[in-house]
Formats: sequence, C-alpha cells, structure tokens
Amino acid sequence: MLVVKLGGSNGLDFAAPCRDIAALVREGKEVVVVHGGSREVDRISAALGRPPRYVTTPSGFRSRYTDRETLEIFAMVVAGRINKLLVEHLQALGVNALGLSGLDGRLLVGKCKGVIIALENGRKRVLRGDYGGTVEGVNASLLRWLLEGGYTPVIAPVAMSTAGEALNVDGDRAAAAVAAALGAEALVLLTDVPGLLRDPADPSTLIPRIPAAEARGCLERYAKGRMKKKLHAAISALEGGVARVIIADGRVEAPVSRALEGRGTVIGGRARELPGKGEG
Amino acid sequence: MLVVKLGGSNGLDFAAPCRDIAALVREGKEVVVVHGGSREVDRISAALGRPPRYVTTPSGFRSRYTDRETLEIFAMVVAGRINKLLVEHLQALGVNALGLSGLDGRLLVGKCKGVIIALENGRKRVLRGDYGGTVEGVNASLLRWLLEGGYTPVIAPVAMSTAGEALNVDGDRAAAAVAAALGAEALVLLTDVPGLLRDPADPSTLIPRIPAAEARGCLERYAKGRMKKKLHAAISALEGGVARVIIADGRVEAPVSRALEGRGTVIGGRARELPGKGEG
Repeated sequence: MLVVKLGGSNGLDFAAPCRDIAALVREGKEVVVVHGGSREVDRISAALGRPPRYVTTPSGFRSRYTDRETLEIFAMVVAGRINKLLVEHLQALGVNALGLSGLDGRLLVGKCKGVIIALENGRKRVLRGDYGGTVEGVNASLLRWLLEGGYTPVIAPVAMSTAGEALNVDGDRAAAAVAAALGAEALVLLTDVPGLLRDPADPSTLIPRIPAAEARGCLERYAKGRMKKKLHAAISALEGGVARVIIADGRVEAPVSRALEGRGTVIGGRARELPGKGEG
Repeated sequence: MLVVKLGGSNGLDFAAPCRDIAALVREGKEVVVVHGGSREVDRISAALGRPPRYVTTPSGFRSRYTDRETLEIFAMVVAGRINKLLVEHLQALGVNALGLSGLDGRLLVGKCKGVIIALENGRKRVLRGDYGGTVEGVNASLLRWLLEGGYTPVIAPVAMSTAGEALNVDGDRAAAAVAAALGAEALVLLTDVPGLLRDPADPSTLIPRIPAAEARGCLERYAKGRMKKKLHAAISALEGGVARVIIADGRVEAPVSRALEGRGTVIGGRARELPGKGEG
C-alpha cells in the first residue's frame, strides 16, 4: 500500500501523477491520494475579496491564519474544487476514485491550534480564533474498507476537531498521518523540486538518500520553508512505522513510479537494508 | 430506510432538519441525505464575477445554463461548501455523516444534456455546451455499505456523465433516483412552503394527499416552477418503487418526523392501504 501526496503549490497540473497512479492501480497496487491546494485557495479567496493572510511563526514556518470565514473558503476549495477535479480526472482514467475530506466519517481527527503566534517586525503577536490544526487520529478502517471495495480514496486536507469543528491541516502532515495509520510501505511526497537540495538554488545538490537516524539533522541543516514541513512530515511517518518516504519531483512523467525506483530524496528505506521486503 | 432532500433555495438554515435527522439516526433509522444549493451557488458565482444564467425551457422549467466554468463553481459550492457544512453540522450532533458527490465512487451516473433549449421572447434558442444532466444510475451498493458501517451518507447533486465528466443535476431528481435505487420506504422533500398548494399564494389550500394514480393530473393542474420539479421527482420515485413521497415544510421543528406523520403533501402512500407495512 502506497500513500501519494500531490502538491498544490504548482497549481493543478495533476495530469502526469494521475496517469501514473492509474497505471499503478491497474497493476493492483492500493493507492491513497492526499492533496493540498493552497495556491488555488489563495486565488479564490482573493477573488472573493478575502486575500489570504500568512504569518511567520517564531520557529520559522510560514503559516496561514485561518479565521472561520477563511476556513469555510479553504474547505470549499480543497474539498469541492481540487478534490472533485482530481476525482473526475482519475475516474476518466478508469480509477474508481472516491473523494473525502477529513470531516467525512471522521476520517481525520485533529487538534485545533486556536491561537497562532506571529513574528512581526521581530515581535511576537498572538492571533486568536485560528482554525488551523494538526492531525492526531485517522479512521484507518474506513480507508481499508474503501480500498478492499476497489475504491481509491482521495483526501482533502480538512480535519475534524475534537470539538466537532472543521480545521485546515497541512497536506504533507495529513498524508504522513494517513500513511502511518495504514502502515503504508511508502509515502511519496510530490513537489515542484527534485527533492531535498543542499542548496535550494542548485538542483545538482540533491540529497539522494537520508537514513532515518539522520533525518532530524538534515532538517536543521538543509530544510527551508515548505521543505521543512515535508521533512517534518517524513520524520513523523517514519516514526509511525512507514518503511520509507520519498520527496520527489511531481513535474515529470511517471513521478510516483520514479520515486518508488529511488529518484528524489529517499528517507528511511528499510527496503535497502532488508532486501526483498517493502519494495515498490 | 429514508431519503431526505434538504432544499437549498431557503439558504443554509439546516439546523432543525439536522436535529431531526440526528434524532432519527439515534433511534436506529437509516437515513440518506441529499441536498441542493442553488442559492449559494448563485451568490458565490456572482461574487466570483460569473453571475448565474437561468433560462426558461419550452416546457416551462427554469433551468440553469451550465458551461464548464459554471459547472466547476457549482461543484465547488455544493460539494465543498454546502456538503461539508452539513457534514460538520451533523457530526457535531453525533451523526457519523459522510459527504459524497455523485462523482465519488461513481455514485450518481447521468446523461449530459449537452444542449439546452431556451425560450427567449417567444423564440426558441439552442444553447450548446451545457453540463446539466439527469441521473440514470445510482451506486446503491456503496450507499448500503456505508449505511451498514454506521455512516450517514450526505450527497451533493453532481453526477458523472457516461463520458466521464461532471454534471450539474437537480437535487430533487437525484434524491428520487437514490430513493428508488435503495427501495426506500419514504422520500421526504423538504422545501420552504407547506407542501403542494392549490393556490401558491394561500397556504390553506394545501393538498394533503395525492394517490399515486392522480399525481400526473396534479402536476398539470397545480404545480408551478420548482414545485413542478418536485412532483416530477415524486412521480419518478413512486414509479421506481418508493412507497410514498412527502413534500413538506422544512422551516418547522422536527420537519422530517412531521412529514413521516403525514404533514405536508403525501403522494402515494401504500402504507395507508396496507396497514402495518412501510410505516415511518
């Protein structure tokens, strides 16, 4: 079983990943798709007169401040637009895709941040009423049940808080939680760069392989911005029992298959240490 | 088993119907919810600079002209906004709601109209590229499977065409198709009037009961506008084997339970002729 995260920052060009996923499903592979959609959320928010508000947290993350109205736009776009366009696209390729948000059947249960600390001009500022959250529980039996029924789940990054409210969650972290809950053999995080780079400006500095024990060190040394979130997600997936995580380029033909062959940055990967186990 | 259609034309005040559905689910009733959302689609379309375009067909129906861009907005709003707000609301009431559009798992398969005939100043005009459609097939096994698993399906009126494209479908007709496919004992169509009225301006002219054989006659004689679509939906549900259809007021407390007790306009209703069968 395989969990694939489709990045949202490079827009909606999901054609090559979808073709590849369709081929894998035809071969009998069980695939769960998780997607993002930030760029599209920003575009539609702005068109609706609610431009997105991003803040930088003291730990250096760029984070969306999500009040209730922003949350409703976020949910509408990721669960209603991106999710359904992906489902339509996969269905046209013969995949019996079934789209869900984390609200549906309590698929993703999370903790609401409530407040977000923003660093503004070197000073910390507390913003209340934030509906961002982190995934803490996954309804894995619903996903297994759908996979057994021949459906390919496609998951939008919205979770249900323990208080019963919708939350905006990070797609990479949600994919990691899903992969861990399913005990997936691999988590593929597709993005618009070739993998983790020593120098973000130079693709030739790709780090091809990171043993699990060295992942935290790499996080401190090389990861910036979005890549930091991806490495955090990778580490939590490995800690959750996923055999390997591959951060790979989603802009090429057959990006998932290439990632499974080891292109990109492979993190963990007990498969190499125990030949014959967990491959592909 | 029971199918409830929540009307979209009276906005998003789903509080009373949701409370009632939660009570019915707690009593062990299997409920499938279908919703609309036209008014909200119109509001957001207009905010996005794409005001809706309605036409009147030669047979007197008011119909939305849905080009591809309108379809994408329609799907986003009904499947991402209304569906997820409803799921969140039901979840907060303890119902394990699970939202789907007709695209998901090919839940609703339909035929694309392709063209729509508009009557403009007494002349017929052909509009091409319409992504409106009618539901012709329902994946009933997916719904039964979810109900058996303890989930309450909540369905957005988007279908999948035989060519693999998304379609905008009428919520009442979709609910009728779902009720027929499941062999539901009752279909409750909630709206913002007390039922079918002899005189739409006078609530005291409510028609409380229409035997199945007289439904077509009533359609010609009394139904106008949206009520015409509801009666059409009711007739197709009865023809599909649903025992009775109730068109009822959704603006009151416990609107579904009241409808099942016979308030509103009850169409068909073999339950009355064969005591003890199909009740409630």
